[in-house]
Parts: sequence; structure tokens; C-alpha cells
Amino acid sequence: MDEREALSLLAAELPGAGDDCAVVDGRVLTTDMLHESADFPDGVTRYTAGWRSVGASLSDVAAMGADAEAAVAAYAAPSFDAGEIRAYVRGARDVCEAVGAEYVGGDLDRTDEFTVATTVVGAAADPVLRSGASPGEVVCVTGALGRTAAALRFFERAAAGDPGGARDAAGAGNAGNSPAAVERGNDLFRFTPRVAAGRALRSHATAMMDSSDGLARSLHQLSEASDCGFSIREADVPVHPAVDEVTSGEGERREAALFLGEDFELVFAVPEGEFDAAREASPTPLARIGDVTESGIEMDGEPLPDRGYDH
Amino acid sequence: MDEREALSLLAAELPGAGDDCAVVDGRVLTTDMLHESADFPDGVTRYTAGWRSVGASLSDVAAMGADAEAAVAAYAAPSFDAGEIRAYVRGARDVCEAVGAEYVGGDLDRTDEFTVATTVVGAAADPVLRSGASPGEVVCVTGALGRTAAALRFFERAAAGDPGGARDAAGAGNAGNSPAAVERGNDLFRFTPRVAAGRALRSHATAMMDSSDGLARSLHQLSEASDCGFSIREADVPVHPAVDEVTSGEGERREAALFLGEDFELVFAVPEGEFDAAREASPTPLARIGDVTESGIEMDGEPLPDRGYDH
Repeated sequence: MDEREALSLLAAELPGAGDDCAVVDGRVLTTDMLHESADFPDGVTRYTAGWRSVGASLSDVAAMGADAEAAVAAYAAPSFDAGEIRAYVRGARDVCEAVGAEYVGGDLDRTDEFTVATTVVGAAADPVLRSGASPGEVVCVTGALGRTAAALRFFERAAAGDPGGARDAAGAGNAGNSPAAVERGNDLFRFTPRVAAGRALRSHATAMMDSSDGLARSLHQLSEASDCGFSIREADVPVHPAVDEVTSGEGERREAALFLGEDFELVFAVPEGEFDAAREASPTPLARIGDVTESGIEMDGEPLPDRGYDH
Repeated sequence: MDEREALSLLAAELPGAGDDCAVVDGRVLTTDMLHESADFPDGVTRYTAGWRSVGASLSDVAAMGADAEAAVAAYAAPSFDAGEIRAYVRGARDVCEAVGAEYVGGDLDRTDEFTVATTVVGAAADPVLRSGASPGEVVCVTGALGRTAAALRFFERAAAGDPGGARDAAGAGNAGNSPAAVERGNDLFRFTPRVAAGRALRSHATAMMDSSDGLARSLHQLSEASDCGFSIREADVPVHPAVDEVTSGEGERREAALFLGEDFELVFAVPEGEFDAAREASPTPLARIGDVTESGIEMDGEPLPDRGYDH
């Protein structure tokens, strides 16, 4: 059974678990496990790993329109290095601070592969679920997509010993060296969880989730939960500027922005008449990328496949 | 650096993290990671793994005298088997139900080794810390110690193909077979977290923790946090009846009860005059095993070494 089937099974066993967070008594709770081979490519520092892993759980809380309160992490590695542990904790603490949450501790375990499990608890009297979108509303995203895809390209270049972080128009390496590519990758990997935007959107959005599985798959998941369709316009999908530094051609660009995922932006529906108020309330730019329809997921009139990132 | 040094480093980085749970705004939060090679010997079912792993976090909440509210788990395995996932969830749900908490979901990840990370959130306006014990008080434990040591022996016997679960006085295998030993091991592994006892003790205990690192090490940890000593009487330490089935001689019995750990009983100090009230309030039997002193950890007048289970 693949991960999606297993997650469906889990959701069936635990009816409260189909959203980005479980909801219990006005509180939201989410946990995520990440490990080196799948989630932290060569070049990711422990500081970035701390930031990003706790950030992934904070993003789930943001996706419910909830306030992030406290985070913990279980940190497992083949050996315990004081510098690495301190760097991880610093990253975890800094991402919490960035969204007004508190990093309060964790557990240590010894495993063959660096693995972390992060958990965040948040508060929301009336959390935004995936299931409230209706035809006639508009569908939007925060920020811009493709950031993680770009980061992965920088890490790949660094691993391949490419001398430059980015390439100029002629395809030659820019001034710089592998450390520059690693640094760009790390910078891009340390996203700001959209907790403040989620809070601003909670009185406007009718359905919301994060884009951690990619925009295309997120739309399919919202569609299933809300029993609706979406029609989006590719030209309106905001693409992170770093994507253009590392891709060539529309095909690669589209792959990065629509399918790769792990971007942790919010994807949500709002009634058309509330879009302006939502945009005003949100500290993060919002882009209106299309409409909620009766059924089907289309981009520019063509079916948008349910394809994305399997964690 | 070994795990204890790493945990000390973590506690230094995160001053709130030195107790069994982190405390934040009247809420307690704890996370634990367990993995197959260290924590789930051959023979442990996924149902037992679900029960025990979530139980370990519930025990941390109990140790703060807090009410356990909700639990999540991240489940990682080399492959996803529907029967195994369902069994894990059932175990997780059942242990939550046993203590009035709710199992609300989790995450799935693919790793080479079966690994789980469990998190529990609880509520306590005034949690019991490790740091409040004073000389003149008495030191107590809930239930009986050595249960996990006995379980491990049953699993070892089963793995060695021993035909009997327990042995009679002459050392011959009883009627039964390996499945019986596996079943005894699983039964013993599924402990009831002492949440109800912890709640009953929160208005009496001055310092408390769980015995997951073994009684000896727990006393050393309470001693360090409370800046006190302990003098205990071995004859008063309650030993689980299963220990006598699987050990021969005082040395093995003592090792199982005092040092091996992973038993998840509560170890706590109370003023002498409150012991009777505490005993009356607790649904789990309490045993008074000694006294809080100025300094030093002694058993029957001899130093009790700081030795126990490293997770």
C-alpha cells in the first residue's frame, strides 16, 4: 500500500484526522515525521532542519486558521553532536518565534538515519476545515509557489560540485561556489509558516489547507473534501522568483510551481465579495488563481492531474 | 556524547524541558520517539506497540499530575500494511480510552526501521515538578516495579524457542508454547499509564516523575532537581509478581525491580502527614519505600548507584 492509501486508511480509522490538524476541544494538534533521505538533502544544515521540520507542523496549524501555541520535537540521529543539537534547537526556536509560538522541548533517540518528529498545538475556536468551499467562490494562494523546488535544485547543484549558485542567461555559472548554492538552498528551505495569514483568513476562508503536497494535489484534496471543482488560470499562479533561476523552459517551471509541493503556502476558497477584505487583512500577499466550480479540476480548460509529492 | 549528556544539553537549551513534560500556559506537552531495535523486541504486536508508545507519553503527563487530553502519533515503517496500521491505531486508541484521553490522529512516514513518535497534550493549572521534595517527607511509588523486565524475559524466551511461558519451581517449562510467552510479554508490555493516580496525587505530591529510567535513576533525577537525598528500604519496594516467574535469585530480582526501568510507575515525595490521604485518593496502590533526606541516595544504608536504562 502506498502512502496515500495508508493515509486514507488512517483518516477512515480516525474521522477527526482528515484535515491538516486534528481538532479537539477548541485546540488543534498536528504531528509530522521527516527523515534525512526523503526530506533533508545533502547540504541542509541542522539549523535549517530545525526551522523547516517545526515549520511544517506550524504550517498545518496555519492551514486551520489557528493560533500556533507550542511546539515540541523528537530528534533522532546515529550520534549526538552538541553543535548539531544546538543548531537544530536554535532553528526550531527561531521559526516558532517568527510566528509567535513557543518551542518547549522534546525527546532524543538514536536511529540509523537522522529523523525528526515535530508536533505543534494551537488554538482555534472555529478552525477552517478543507470541506467548506462552494461553487461561485474564488480560489487563492498565499505567497508564491516553487520555492522548495528551487531549493532542491540549488542543493543538487552543490552536491554535483557546480561552482555557481545560479546560472546566467548563457547557462554559465555565476561568480560564486558550492557554498553559495548550499546557502541559497538553505535560505529557500527556511520558509515562514503562514500562521499570521491563516489567522487573518479564518473569518473569510470557507476551506483551506497548505500546499505541502503541491498545488495540483491540494486542489484535488480540497475538491474531495468540499465536493466541488476548481478552474484555475496558470498565468495567475504566482511563481517564486528563484524558480526562474534554476529552471529552463515552461515545462520545468510548471512542474516546480504546480506539482512538486513542499511549499507550505495556504490554498483556500473565499466568497468573491470577501476577497478584497481578505487581501487587506493578510500580511502575506494573496493571489486569486481561479474559481470554485461544481466539479472537475481544470487549468486553462484542461484537466489538471492529481499528481504531486509523496512524502 | 551519550544520550544522558545530550538530554542535559537539551535541558540547558530549553529550561522548560527538564521535567517529564514541558509546561506552557496551564498545559503540558510531551513527545517520545521509540524504535524497533531498542524498544519493541521480537514478538511485540503492533497493537501492543500502539498501546505502549502512546502510553509512554501519557505516563509523562501523569507524572506532572495533569489530565491527559489528546494524543497523536507519527508512524514510520519500511512498508505500510493495512492490518498493522489498524492494529497500531487500535492500541493507541485503547490506551487513550483507558485514561480518558482522545487519540486524534497522526502522520505516516517510510523509514528502514519501524519507528513511532508520540505526543500527548494535557492540562494542569499547577503541575507537579521534579523539584519540590524536602527532607522529612516520604518517598513512594505507585503499583509495582519490574513489569517490563519480566516482559522482556518472556520475549527473549519466545525468541529462543522456549516452549513455555513461565517455568515451574524445578525450572522445567510449563505447559504452553512460544505463543504463550509472546502473549505474556505483550500483556505485560501494555501497562496502564498512571494518569488517574497522578491526578489524585497532584494536591499531595511535592515532587514527581515516572520510573521510565528505572527506580534508581529516577531517585537520582529527583534528588538533583529537588536538591535532596533519599534513603529507601529494599524490602518495601513493591515488585511485580511476574518478576518471580522469570528471575532466579536476589541479584536478578533486584536488577529487574530497581534498575531496568521502562516501568512507567510514578515515583514521588509527599509530606509524611499526607501519605494516608494520598493513598486513599489514589486508585492505584501506593507503597512508601523510604524517606527524603538531606543528601545521598541510599538503600538499606548503602549507596544506590545512578544506573538504569538508557533509551
